[in-house]
Amino acid sequence: MSQHARHLAFGGDYNPEQWPAEVQDEDLELMAEAGVTLVTLGVFSWGTYEPERGRLELDWLDATLDRLHGAGIAVDLATPTAAPPVWLLQEHPEILPVSRTGQRYAQGGRLGWCASHPVWRAEAERIVGALAERYGDHPAVTMWHLGNELGGGNRHCYCDVSAAHFQRWLAERYGDVDALNAAWGTAFWGHRYTRFEHVLPPRDSETIGRGNPGLVLDFDRFSSDALLEHLRAEAAVVRAHSDRPVTTNFMVGTGPHVVDYARWAAEPGLLQVTSTDHYVHATDEHRAQGVAWISDRMRGLRPDEPWLLMETAAGAVSWQPRNVPLTPGELRRNAFSHVARGADGVLFFQWRASAAGAEQFHSGMVPHAGRRSRTFAEVVELGADLRAAAPLAGTLVERARVAVLVDEEAGWAWEAGPKPIWGYPITELARQAHRVLHARGIRVDVVPTTRLADLELYDLVVVPGVFLMSTGTASAVAAVADRGARVVVGHLSGLVDPTNRVVTGGYPGLLRELLGVHVDEQHPLLDGVTVAVEGGLRARDWTERVEADDASVVARYLEGPYAERPAVTRRDVGATGQAWYVSAAFDDDALGTVLDLAADGLGLGPVVPVSPGLDVVRRGAPQGSYLVVLNPTDRAGEVHAAGTDLLTGVTAPSHTVPAGAVVVIAEELGRAPLAATRRT
Amino acid sequence: MSQHARHLAFGGDYNPEQWPAEVQDEDLELMAEAGVTLVTLGVFSWGTYEPERGRLELDWLDATLDRLHGAGIAVDLATPTAAPPVWLLQEHPEILPVSRTGQRYAQGGRLGWCASHPVWRAEAERIVGALAERYGDHPAVTMWHLGNELGGGNRHCYCDVSAAHFQRWLAERYGDVDALNAAWGTAFWGHRYTRFEHVLPPRDSETIGRGNPGLVLDFDRFSSDALLEHLRAEAAVVRAHSDRPVTTNFMVGTGPHVVDYARWAAEPGLLQVTSTDHYVHATDEHRAQGVAWISDRMRGLRPDEPWLLMETAAGAVSWQPRNVPLTPGELRRNAFSHVARGADGVLFFQWRASAAGAEQFHSGMVPHAGRRSRTFAEVVELGADLRAAAPLAGTLVERARVAVLVDEEAGWAWEAGPKPIWGYPITELARQAHRVLHARGIRVDVVPTTRLADLELYDLVVVPGVFLMSTGTASAVAAVADRGARVVVGHLSGLVDPTNRVVTGGYPGLLRELLGVHVDEQHPLLDGVTVAVEGGLRARDWTERVEADDASVVARYLEGPYAERPAVTRRDVGATGQAWYVSAAFDDDALGTVLDLAADGLGLGPVVPVSPGLDVVRRGAPQGSYLVVLNPTDRAGEVHAAGTDLLTGVTAPSHTVPAGAVVVIAEELGRAPLAATRRT
Amino acid sequence: MSQHARHLAFGGDYNPEQWPAEVQDEDLELMAEAGVTLVTLGVFSWGTYEPERGRLELDWLDATLDRLHGAGIAVDLATPTAAPPVWLLQEHPEILPVSRTGQRYAQGGRLGWCASHPVWRAEAERIVGALAERYGDHPAVTMWHLGNELGGGNRHCYCDVSAAHFQRWLAERYGDVDALNAAWGTAFWGHRYTRFEHVLPPRDSETIGRGNPGLVLDFDRFSSDALLEHLRAEAAVVRAHSDRPVTTNFMVGTGPHVVDYARWAAEPGLLQVTSTDHYVHATDEHRAQGVAWISDRMRGLRPDEPWLLMETAAGAVSWQPRNVPLTPGELRRNAFSHVARGADGVLFFQWRASAAGAEQFHSGMVPHAGRRSRTFAEVVELGADLRAAAPLAGTLVERARVAVLVDEEAGWAWEAGPKPIWGYPITELARQAHRVLHARGIRVDVVPTTRLADLELYDLVVVPGVFLMSTGTASAVAAVADRGARVVVGHLSGLVDPTNRVVTGGYPGLLRELLGVHVDEQHPLLDGVTVAVEGGLRARDWTERVEADDASVVARYLEGPYAERPAVTRRDVGATGQAWYVSAAFDDDALGTVLDLAADGLGLGPVVPVSPGLDVVRRGAPQGSYLVVLNPTDRAGEVHAAGTDLLTGVTAPSHTVPAGAVVVIAEELGRAPLAATRRT
Repeated sequence: MSQHARHLAFGGDYNPEQWPAEVQDEDLELMAEAGVTLVTLGVFSWGTYEPERGRLELDWLDATLDRLHGAGIAVDLATPTAAPPVWLLQEHPEILPVSRTGQRYAQGGRLGWCASHPVWRAEAERIVGALAERYGDHPAVTMWHLGNELGGGNRHCYCDVSAAHFQRWLAERYGDVDALNAAWGTAFWGHRYTRFEHVLPPRDSETIGRGNPGLVLDFDRFSSDALLEHLRAEAAVVRAHSDRPVTTNFMVGTGPHVVDYARWAAEPGLLQVTSTDHYVHATDEHRAQGVAWISDRMRGLRPDEPWLLMETAAGAVSWQPRNVPLTPGELRRNAFSHVARGADGVLFFQWRASAAGAEQFHSGMVPHAGRRSRTFAEVVELGADLRAAAPLAGTLVERARVAVLVDEEAGWAWEAGPKPIWGYPITELARQAHRVLHARGIRVDVVPTTRLADLELYDLVVVPGVFLMSTGTASAVAAVADRGARVVVGHLSGLVDPTNRVVTGGYPGLLRELLGVHVDEQHPLLDGVTVAVEGGLRARDWTERVEADDASVVARYLEGPYAERPAVTRRDVGATGQAWYVSAAFDDDALGTVLDLAADGLGLGPVVPVSPGLDVVRRGAPQGSYLVVLNPTDRAGEVHAAGTDLLTGVTAPSHTVPAGAVVVIAEELGRAPLAATRRT
Repeated sequence: MSQHARHLAFGGDYNPEQWPAEVQDEDLELMAEAGVTLVTLGVFSWGTYEPERGRLELDWLDATLDRLHGAGIAVDLATPTAAPPVWLLQEHPEILPVSRTGQRYAQGGRLGWCASHPVWRAEAERIVGALAERYGDHPAVTMWHLGNELGGGNRHCYCDVSAAHFQRWLAERYGDVDALNAAWGTAFWGHRYTRFEHVLPPRDSETIGRGNPGLVLDFDRFSSDALLEHLRAEAAVVRAHSDRPVTTNFMVGTGPHVVDYARWAAEPGLLQVTSTDHYVHATDEHRAQGVAWISDRMRGLRPDEPWLLMETAAGAVSWQPRNVPLTPGELRRNAFSHVARGADGVLFFQWRASAAGAEQFHSGMVPHAGRRSRTFAEVVELGADLRAAAPLAGTLVERARVAVLVDEEAGWAWEAGPKPIWGYPITELARQAHRVLHARGIRVDVVPTTRLADLELYDLVVVPGVFLMSTGTASAVAAVADRGARVVVGHLSGLVDPTNRVVTGGYPGLLRELLGVHVDEQHPLLDGVTVAVEGGLRARDWTERVEADDASVVARYLEGPYAERPAVTRRDVGATGQAWYVSAAFDDDALGTVLDLAADGLGLGPVVPVSPGLDVVRRGAPQGSYLVVLNPTDRAGEVHAAGTDLLTGVTAPSHTVPAGAVVVIAEELGRAPLAATRRT
Repeated sequence: MSQHARHLAFGGDYNPEQWPAEVQDEDLELMAEAGVTLVTLGVFSWGTYEPERGRLELDWLDATLDRLHGAGIAVDLATPTAAPPVWLLQEHPEILPVSRTGQRYAQGGRLGWCASHPVWRAEAERIVGALAERYGDHPAVTMWHLGNELGGGNRHCYCDVSAAHFQRWLAERYGDVDALNAAWGTAFWGHRYTRFEHVLPPRDSETIGRGNPGLVLDFDRFSSDALLEHLRAEAAVVRAHSDRPVTTNFMVGTGPHVVDYARWAAEPGLLQVTSTDHYVHATDEHRAQGVAWISDRMRGLRPDEPWLLMETAAGAVSWQPRNVPLTPGELRRNAFSHVARGADGVLFFQWRASAAGAEQFHSGMVPHAGRRSRTFAEVVELGADLRAAAPLAGTLVERARVAVLVDEEAGWAWEAGPKPIWGYPITELARQAHRVLHARGIRVDVVPTTRLADLELYDLVVVPGVFLMSTGTASAVAAVADRGARVVVGHLSGLVDPTNRVVTGGYPGLLRELLGVHVDEQHPLLDGVTVAVEGGLRARDWTERVEADDASVVARYLEGPYAERPAVTRRDVGATGQAWYVSAAFDDDALGTVLDLAADGLGLGPVVPVSPGLDVVRRGAPQGSYLVVLNPTDRAGEVHAAGTDLLTGVTAPSHTVPAGAVVVIAEELGRAPLAATRRT
C-alpha cells in the first residue's frame, strides 16, 4: 500500500451527484479545513455515468476528478457495480437475486444482482472496463474500489442459474456424486442424490428448517466463492488498464461473515490493499473493545502489512433501532484504535450526510447542520491529529503474545441445521476471549485458520468455539502444546469435520487426544439457569459430562447434571506445554479467572506500564517505534514510556493521558526495529 | 346532514340475510324496544343480490326495505363493494390486490379488489348503478353508504396495473422524470430513473427495508388517491339516480391513517355526511380520552357540521388478542362523548352478533344470549337517552381555545424509510398532547393541515411531531406567534419537506427561525434510559443538542449527552406571542408541566366549573346551548351550570353527576348562540 | 398385537445405511448387549432401494433382514414413503405440497408429498407393493410401519389438486352448496358460494387472518381424511401380500393433533397395532405427568388393547431451542410410565445417533460417544428391566374411575378464526385437569368423543374446554349426571356446534340445560390480571357473567367485572348426580380445590396405599395382576402391596421404592382378573 505509506489517509465516500453545484463548492472548502486526503468516488454512480444503455456521460466525472486532484485530494475510484442502474434491471430482471423463499428481489435496494449470472457478469465487466480504460492512468486515481460490501444484500442467490453454478461447483469439489452423498450423509431422511444436477440450493420450505448441514455449509462456501469469482473478474478488467492498487471493502465483524474474508485476503495477487468497514452498535456495552476486536481481526488477515478503514460513521448510523451519535472524543479514540492496530487510514461513510434516500439520517463528516456542528468540529480535529501521526503510516503492529483462533466456516457450520443450543452466538465466543484479555491490558492477535503457521508465534493460543476443524487445524493446535506453549480450548470446538459431520467416539473428537478428555454428553442449560463451579465460578448456557482420561482436573462442577465431574481440565505436554479444556460457558469474569490460571507465569500484560484501563499498542518500523495509547476511562492515566507525543509535541519520560484522550508516543530509546516476534 | 337534524340517529349495521325468518321477526320487536332509528343495510350483500353474473335477486331487499320503512326505521343503504362475490373473483382473479411481496390475495376476506383495476371499476359501477337506479328514491333510504372502511385491507396494491397507474400519477405530479429524481434524491444508491415507466411501487425484497423515503411516501399518497378515485366513481353513479346524501365510513384513529381523510373530507361536493368507525382497545389505559380524541379528530375534518359515528362495538370486538366487553355504563359514556363532540348519531357494528363467520365473537347490540343480557339492557337505555337528547341534533360544538395540529402525510413520511428511532409512534404524540390537556379539563380542537386558516382561532397551538411540513404549514404555524398567540413545537417536527427530504442547515429546518434555535444533533435514548431535565422532569426516548440562538432557555438537560444545554426554549414574538420548543420526549406528567408553563396566564380550563375528572363540552345552536357532562370517575361530581338535565328532566342551578354517569344540561340563561369563536 | 404378547418390545429405528460395515457389525454386538428385540427398518430408505426409477437394489435390505433375523431381532419394516427420493421430486415436482401462502415446498425435508395427488399415490403404491410382495412373508418382518408421522410436515396442502379434492369432499359432506352456505354462515362478509368448485382452501392472504371458521375447520377435517385415504391405500397394498399386522406411528400430544387419531384408530380393520411417538420437552415443568398424560391419551384410543411406544428419545432431541438430555434414571421411569399405561414396548428414535443430516445432534440409544456413555449404560439396564417385566406384556390397564373428555375437532374449531382470547391453548386444559388429578394420585382415563359409550364407566367425568360439541356428545355428557355420577364442565366447553357456529340463547348453548346456568357475556382477563373468587381462589385469563337459573352457587367472584356473581355452580341431578360448571380459568392449585369439592365423598385416590408423590398403575390379565410404581421424587417411598418385584425378585408385604426408581410388583393375593370396571 505504497500510496499511503507517507501519511495516514483521511476522508470518506464522496457523492457529489446528490448535491447542487454550490454545495460541491463548499465541499472543497470544508475538505481543506478538515485535511481530507482521500475520497471514494462513484460507488453508486452507474446510473449517473450511463443514464441509458450505451450513452456514457462521464464529463461530470472528468470534472470532479480534476477538481479533486487540483485540491490535492486523492481518489479511490469505485467500480459502480454496487448499483446496477434501473434501466438495466428493467431490461434484465433475471439478474436480480432470488431469495431463499423463491422471491425475486425488487429493484430499489442495493447489490441487486446474482453473482452467478452471465448477463450480469458481462454488464459489470463492460462498465468496469469503460471506467478503467478512461481513468486507469488518471493522476487523481490512486486506488480502485471494486464493488462495495460484496455479499451485503446478495450474499446468497437461490435462482436456477445459481443452482446450476452450485452444481458445477459441487461436481468440481466432490468429483462423483456418491462422494457428496457420503460427505453430507444424505442417507438421513432419504436425501440421496444420483446426479449433481439434482442438488438444489437449500431453498426454504415448511420442511427445510432442518436442512442438511453439509448442504447448507457447502452453499455458504459456494456463495462466497461465487462472489469471489465476480471480484476476480472485476479485478482482471481493471488490471488490464491500470497499475493502481485495487481493494474491496470487507465487512469484518464478529462473524460468521457474509463471505470468507480470510480466504479472499489470502488469494495471491488479487487485492493489493485490504480494507474493511466498521460501524459501532449503539447497544454494545463494550464499544471500545469492539473497535479493537475488529481491528485485530482485520489485521490478522494479513499481519505483515497495514490495512485501511474504508467506512465508519462520524456519528449515528441509520440502520439500528435507535441510532445514537458517538460520545465526545469517541470519534478520535475509535480512529486511533484502528490506527494503533494497523490501519493506515480512516475513512467515513460518507462525507456529507444525505438529505434524501434510504440513509438520510445516517451521519456524515458534514452533518445536516453543516459546518456548525459538534461532529464537523471533531472531524477537523481528527484530521489534524492524523496528519501529526503520519510517521505511523506504513509501520507494522507489534505481534501480540496471545492468539485467538477463528474460522468463518466453523461459524457457518454451526448455523447450518439444528444444534444442541439454537441461535447460540458461537462466533461471539472469540470476541469474548479477546474482550477478557483486552480488559487485562493484554494484546491479542486474531489468527484465521488460513494462517495456521502463525500459531507458532504465540505463548498462548485460545480456541473459542471453533466448531468445525480440519485435521490440519487440529494438528496445528496440538503443535502449540507440543512445542511447549499453551492452548486453551473452549466448549463447542472441534466437534465436526469439514463436511459438518460429527466426529464420533467422544467429544471433542478432533481435539480429544490433545486434551486428554472424553465427553459423552452435552447439556445446554435452560435460559437463565446457572451452575456453580469450583473457584467461585458459575457456568451458564452450556455444560458437558467430562471424563479426564489423561488430564488434571482444574475445577469441578459443584452442582447441576454433572456435579463432581470435571468442568475445566489441563493436560501437561512435555516440560512446559499445556492443553486446557473449558467445558462450560462462562461470563467474562469467570472466563477471566480461567484464563488467568492458564496464563499463570507467562507474565502477560501491557507492552509498557500504564494505568488501569488504558489501551496501548506498539507499531514500528526500522526507522522507529510508536506507542498509541487510548484512555477510554473517565480519569486521567499515565503511560510510562519516554518519548514525544506526536499529537502535542511534548517530550517526556512518561505521559499523562487525559480522560477520554489519545497520545501517540514516538519512543525514544533502545527499541529495536520490529519484526514478527517468535516465542522465546 | 339535514336528515338527522331532528334527532340523534341510533342503530347499526343490519345483516338479516344471516338469519332465518323468525329471527328477523324478533329483530323488529327488539329494534322497537331499543328505539332504533337508522340501520345500515347491505354492506356485504352483493353475493346475495347477484348470486351469479347478471341474475339480480332483489326481492329480498325490496321486502326488507319495506318492512323497515313500515317500522319507521330509516336505511343507510350500502353499495356492496366491500365484498365482491366469489363468482366474480373466480371469473376475474386479476382484480384481487397483490401484496408488497408479490402475493395475490386469496378470496375469503374483505375488500378483495385493486383500486386501480379497470375491470373492477366497471363491475363496481355496474352493481352500484343497479342499486341506485332501483332504490334511489325509495322512501326508506335516507343515506347512501359507499363501500366500507375503504383501504382497510386493500390500502395498497402492488400489482402491475397499480404500478402503471402509479406511473401516470407520478408523471402528472412531477411533469418530467428529472424532477422526480431530484425530489426523491435518487442519486443515493444509484436509483436514478430515466422514464416514469421504470418506477415501480416499493415492492418488498431483501433489500427494500430501507426503501427510498420519497418513493414510499408518494406511493402512500397515490394509494390514497386511487381509493379516492374509486369513491368518486361510486358517488357519481349514485348521484345520477338519487338525491340522498352519501357518506363513507372513515377509520379515524391515532394514525397515520390508511388514507388521507382530511383531504377526502375537504373535497367539495363528494360526501354530504362524514362518518367514522371507532373501536375501543381493551389495553388502552386511557379509553375515555381515546374516545374524546377520536371525536375531536373527526370533528376537526369539518368543524362546522355534525358527523356520524357509523360503527362502534356494544361490547367486545373480535380482533384483539383478548376481547373484553365494555364496563357497565361505558356504553352510554362513550356514546355521549361522541355526541358531545359533534356526533349526530351513534351506530354499532352490528345489530345482532353473528353466530358464524369471521367475527362470530364480535359483540352486537343483541348478543348471542339475546334479549336476556346486560348488553341489550344497556342498549335499550341508551336508545331512550339519545331520544331525550334529541335537541342536540344539528347543533355545533363550541370551539376550543387550544388546537393540536395533525397531518397524515407527516405520519406516512416518518414511517417511510429508516429514521433515527425506528418504530417510534410519532402520531401518538398528538394524542399525548390531547391527553395531557384533556386530563386538565381543557378542551382541544384537532386541526388538520388542510385547514390551516383555522389556526387563527386559537390561543395556543401545539405542533406535536409533525415531521413533514410544507412551507405553507410552517408559515401558518409561525403566524400564530406573529399575531400574539402561543405555539408549542414538539420534537420531530418540521424536519422534512413534502418530498420527505431533510431540510438542512440545522434542525428543525422549517421552524428554526420561528423557534430561534439551532440543533445539530439528535440523540435517541436507548430503551429504558431517561435523562433529568430542570424542573424535576425526565426526558425519555429522545433528546437533541440545542443552541438557543434567539430564545430563552426554559429548562436545561441536567445530565446525559447534552447536560447543561437547553431542553425547552421559548422565543418571545412581539408583545404576547410565544414560540416554544420542546426538544425532548416526555411522559404525560412532564409534558403537562411544560404545557402548564406554556399556557400560563391564558386561563384555560373547563367551560363551566366542574369537579375534577369530569369532562364537559358545550354544543349549541341559535335556539339554545347544551352541556354534555361525563363522569368517568368512581365518585359523584358536580357541574355548576344552571339548566335542565335532558335525561332526567331535573332543573337545577347545578347538577350532580353520579359516578360513571352522564348528564345533558339544556343551559338556562344568557348563553349567546354559538359560532366559531375567535381569539380576543 | 399378538407378536408382542410374550414380551415387551425394545429397540428403535435402525438406519444402517448411514454407516460403514464395521459400525454395522458393532451394532449387532451392542444390540445383543442391550437386549434389543425389535427394530424399525427403512423409514427413509426409498432412495437407497431405488436409486433411479425402476432400478430396485434390494440386496442390501435382504442381507440386513437376514442378519437381524439371525440375531433374533424382529423387524418392523417401514414403507419408505416418508421420503420420496430426490429423483422422483425432480421428475414430478407437482407432488410437493403447497403452503398456505402458495409456495411449493422445496426438496430436502421430509414428507414432501401432497396427499391428494394421484401421481404421488401411484408412486407410493408402486414402491409399497414392491416391498410387500418381496418381504410380506419374510420371517424377520413381524410388523409393517406405514409411512412415518403422517401429516408431520404435510398436514395441509393448498395446491389446486388438493383444492379439487377438497371440493369433492365438501360436495359429499353437504350435498348441495346452499347447505354449505348455511353451515358456514357465508352471508357474513359476503362469502356465499354458488358452486362447490368455487370453494378454495383457506389460503393465506393479507385478509384471511380472520378466515371463515367453518371453512377452516372443514379444511382441517378434509386434510385429516386425505391423509387417512393415503394410509388406507398403503394398508391395502401391504395386506394384499402380507398377513403381518400394520401400524403407523401417531404423534399423540396435547393437541389438537395434526390428524384425528381417535377417528383413525376407530376405523375397523385398518391398523392392527396402534403406536405413537413421544418426546419430552426440556422446558416442561411437569415432565413426568406429561409422559403419563400422553400414555393415558394413547390408551384411550383403544382402551381394550395394548399399544406401542414407537419413538422416544434416549437423551436430547435436536428440534428444541435448548436440547437437554434426560436426567439419570428418567429413561427408565419414562419407559415404565408408558408400560404402566398400556405400552407393550418401548422403541427409540434412533438406535445410533447420526453423525450427519438434519438431526445430527439428536440422541440415540448409542450416542456419538458410543458404548462408553451414560446413555448406553442406561439403555442396557432398561433392556434388562423390560425383559424382567415381560409378564406385563399383553395385559390390560385397569380402568380409572375418572375420565377426561377430549376431541380433536374441538381444538381445531377453537383455532379456526378469531376467538375471544387469541392463542389460548384450549386443549392444554385437558392436560391441566389430568395433571391436577395425577398430582393427587388419582388415575385418569382420557376418553375421545369417538368412544362416548365409555363415559358410562366413570364416577367423575371432566369436560375441559371441549369447545365444539355435537348434540350426541352433549347428550352423553348429560347422561353421566342422569345416571347418578358427576360431571365437571370447564369454561369454553359446548359453545359451538359441529359447523363451528355459536349456539345462541345463552352460553354454553349445548350444556346450558344440564348445568342450569345462563351466561350472556364472556370476559377474558388481560394478561397478568387475576380476580379473587370465594374459597381463596383466583381466576385468571377467563371469567363469565353467570346466572344460576337452576343450580347452587359453589363459589362467587369477589371482584372484577362479575363481582358477587357465580363463578362455580353445581346442579344436583336426581339423588346423586351432579353437574358442575367452572366458569373461570384457574391455576392448578385452584382447579384442584374445585375438583376436590366435586369429588368429595367418592373416595378417589391411588389404587393401593403409597407415599406421597408415587405414581402407581395396575395392569392385569386373567393370569395375574401387576403394579407398576414410579418414584419421580428425590426421597424413597413406600408402596403397601404384597407381592414380588419383578425387577429385583424381592418378595415382600410392602415395597420401598428408592428415590427416582421403579418397581413392578406381581401382586400376591386375592386380586380378581381385571376387566373394564363399571361404576358401582
